[in-house]
Amino acid sequence: MNQQTHFTLSENDIPTQWYNINGDSPVPPAPVLHPITKEPVTPDFLSALFPMPLIEQEISQDRYIDIPEEVRDIYKLYRPTPMIRAHRLEKALGTPAHIYYKYEGASPAGSHKVNTAIAQAYYNKISGVKSLTTETGAGQWGSALSIACSFFDLDLDVYMVKCSYQQKPYRRILMETYGANCFASPTDRTECGRAFLAEDPNCPGSLGIAISEAVEMALKSNGKIKYSLGSVLHHVLIHQSVIGEESLKQMAMADEYPDVVIGCVGGGSNFGGIAFPFLRENLRNGMKTRLLAVEPTAAPSLTRGLYTFDYGDTGHMTPVVKMHTLGHSFIPAPIHAGGLRYHGMAPTVSSLYDAGYLEAVAIPQIRAFKAGQLFAKTEGILPAPESNHAICTAINEALDAKDKGEKRVILFNLSGHGHFDLSSYEAFNNNKIVDSAMSEEYIRTISSRVPDLLSIPV
Amino acid sequence: MNQQTHFTLSENDIPTQWYNINGDSPVPPAPVLHPITKEPVTPDFLSALFPMPLIEQEISQDRYIDIPEEVRDIYKLYRPTPMIRAHRLEKALGTPAHIYYKYEGASPAGSHKVNTAIAQAYYNKISGVKSLTTETGAGQWGSALSIACSFFDLDLDVYMVKCSYQQKPYRRILMETYGANCFASPTDRTECGRAFLAEDPNCPGSLGIAISEAVEMALKSNGKIKYSLGSVLHHVLIHQSVIGEESLKQMAMADEYPDVVIGCVGGGSNFGGIAFPFLRENLRNGMKTRLLAVEPTAAPSLTRGLYTFDYGDTGHMTPVVKMHTLGHSFIPAPIHAGGLRYHGMAPTVSSLYDAGYLEAVAIPQIRAFKAGQLFAKTEGILPAPESNHAICTAINEALDAKDKGEKRVILFNLSGHGHFDLSSYEAFNNNKIVDSAMSEEYIRTISSRVPDLLSIPV
Repeated sequence: MNQQTHFTLSENDIPTQWYNINGDSPVPPAPVLHPITKEPVTPDFLSALFPMPLIEQEISQDRYIDIPEEVRDIYKLYRPTPMIRAHRLEKALGTPAHIYYKYEGASPAGSHKVNTAIAQAYYNKISGVKSLTTETGAGQWGSALSIACSFFDLDLDVYMVKCSYQQKPYRRILMETYGANCFASPTDRTECGRAFLAEDPNCPGSLGIAISEAVEMALKSNGKIKYSLGSVLHHVLIHQSVIGEESLKQMAMADEYPDVVIGCVGGGSNFGGIAFPFLRENLRNGMKTRLLAVEPTAAPSLTRGLYTFDYGDTGHMTPVVKMHTLGHSFIPAPIHAGGLRYHGMAPTVSSLYDAGYLEAVAIPQIRAFKAGQLFAKTEGILPAPESNHAICTAINEALDAKDKGEKRVILFNLSGHGHFDLSSYEAFNNNKIVDSAMSEEYIRTISSRVPDLLSIPV
Repeated sequence: MNQQTHFTLSENDIPTQWYNINGDSPVPPAPVLHPITKEPVTPDFLSALFPMPLIEQEISQDRYIDIPEEVRDIYKLYRPTPMIRAHRLEKALGTPAHIYYKYEGASPAGSHKVNTAIAQAYYNKISGVKSLTTETGAGQWGSALSIACSFFDLDLDVYMVKCSYQQKPYRRILMETYGANCFASPTDRTECGRAFLAEDPNCPGSLGIAISEAVEMALKSNGKIKYSLGSVLHHVLIHQSVIGEESLKQMAMADEYPDVVIGCVGGGSNFGGIAFPFLRENLRNGMKTRLLAVEPTAAPSLTRGLYTFDYGDTGHMTPVVKMHTLGHSFIPAPIHAGGLRYHGMAPTVSSLYDAGYLEAVAIPQIRAFKAGQLFAKTEGILPAPESNHAICTAINEALDAKDKGEKRVILFNLSGHGHFDLSSYEAFNNNKIVDSAMSEEYIRTISSRVPDLLSIPV
């Protein structure tokens, strides 16, 4: 341990390979099912949505996957990202714990999302794809993919949840500035969108609906347009492993090793990105780091959901995967951490959580904002509302260590800055945000809200 | 020269001393005059506004000033900032030039402003000050000082130009989240503000008016409130020298040396910050780097202004300094680079420009935005509208080198990101911004708009 604050690596320390937990995982991945037949899907079916290199990564058992030089060259524009020791936060808490954070918010998109966006744009480009389509909630993913598509000269259509499209014009403008087209979902461009609009012309949209629209556009394009997803899928988590691999090197620079690694979870990619390289050290090298996923009480798929097969979207267009889910028709309360408002969870995170390799906790949003404000006032950076959930849990761990008089080494992922989320902070500053948790009644009935298990032959 | 992209330093490379060009400058600084008597001011007069350590720096001839450990500890949260070689921009331009940029936008405030804000908050704190007051235009400076005041537990009142207050609510909320109070200027809190409101109840405000309000509050507080300024004054430029000092080390890592160093200028602090350490190398070590200040055609104080004594504010509250000025009552056209909308220029930049040690050029805003968008699409980062002026000039240099078949090494300061400026990019995307230049008629009459030189005994 030393008293350093800022742990910087050189560009030679950017990993040359991504890490794939499926090469080490003691839990075999469940099959991915066709949305209509419920039979295991073939690569052919997936290839209507994704280019072959990404499908290969999705099912790969290789522990390491080489990062193409073209991708690594772009990583060099903002990676390695810094790891910072939060001396000032520790002092404010009066804790003997050491708190470190990996800061992904200095990327051009302001979050970790661009780590996979660049990789996905690259593999589509070398597969001859010219156009991509995707959905976005609060806009973090859409922004990241817009930047990546401008690097590789790909067209991009983004279906943005309508209420966010209206409330967060800055994110839309950011996407447009990089050359993407952005539509308020539901749109009249898709059958699925038109159906939702027919039911309710003022439909505010949801991530599940926006996914259905983007997927429909890809499926109907005769291979001309591919679809891109910013979380949940395994290849996304693979690309995010650069976060954890760099963190391992930076913890070594600090001459410490984390007792607990923390990340917020919506679909699971920033958490998987920082946690899985540490899980490898647990599995292969006998380390005992606790890996702690933090979800909002408004969408507690790990802590309150069912571990079963479900659709990724509202419109039944996506493959069916085994995951922790609140039911694909569930629309989470409009909390400010838009990136955490998803009914499901990455299958890899789900299976490892189910098998006891990961821990999870749910946090109400007011506590998360309070933690974020304390962090801003002590460490300077204003965090994204999503990241506030990780900060809140890191603080809880530090205070628990203080109660127990324990030295504890805590590492969390500060996945993004909050410079696009000031309207949320204004609501917080004026005591205008409310907590929301799932109703017990809803939780009791989740099983009626997922596909009929009996019809699934697995 | 090597093919590296990302030049990172370790925290030990953060300078331990600021550099003061006045210790090397061949041009003696002009005296600072009292706003009423027009006699050289005493430290006593200045001490109504600033704490003594900052007044000492303002007039110091010491080449180096130690950076206090408390300030350096906070610099470690975001410094050293990266220097990046813009390989992808070079390729897009097809230029043999090598383009490097120093990126100050990864700071908690999103710009370089926090480098001096932390120092100013520190010196006020150790001088027993409990409250600060300042003005802000687009909000970059107000945000930076809000963050710094939260580190040192100082109260802060920010007078924000009313039209920006209304157009840029995110900046206001950012300041409030860190605990500052933010007022739309002109306010009814000051005599000066009430006078402007009496003349025009809908007065949109200006930086000159907001400065008058903040200064009035400090002058009338019987020493309880001090005033803080984000540019123009020499101690501000001293604090920003960390940018240039780090850049010198990073250029050495790249095994190159810049032929030209470029920064945008409003008050002159980010330019002085990156340029003056290179000017030292010119003066003392025979280097021949061109130092190029870029201003907007809408406020071209260096290229079209008068070099004479003038007030820093509209309300005649500030000291009178010798600088390039467009006249203290000049209100620049509402260009989107709010940080460059100032009638004057740092006296140090002015005197060195006048003596031929610096160059200057003025750029219209549409060309600046085009350059910024090309930069975003090739290098990823969306720049602040102010920084776009530096980018545009770097591109012009690179194209000139291409025309002449010259290898040229170009370094510019990317002073901030544009994540708070998306409404400006929307106007640009929709072809709704216009260029504006000073009228020749106005330029001919500037001398009638500055204080009567005959009454100034210098």
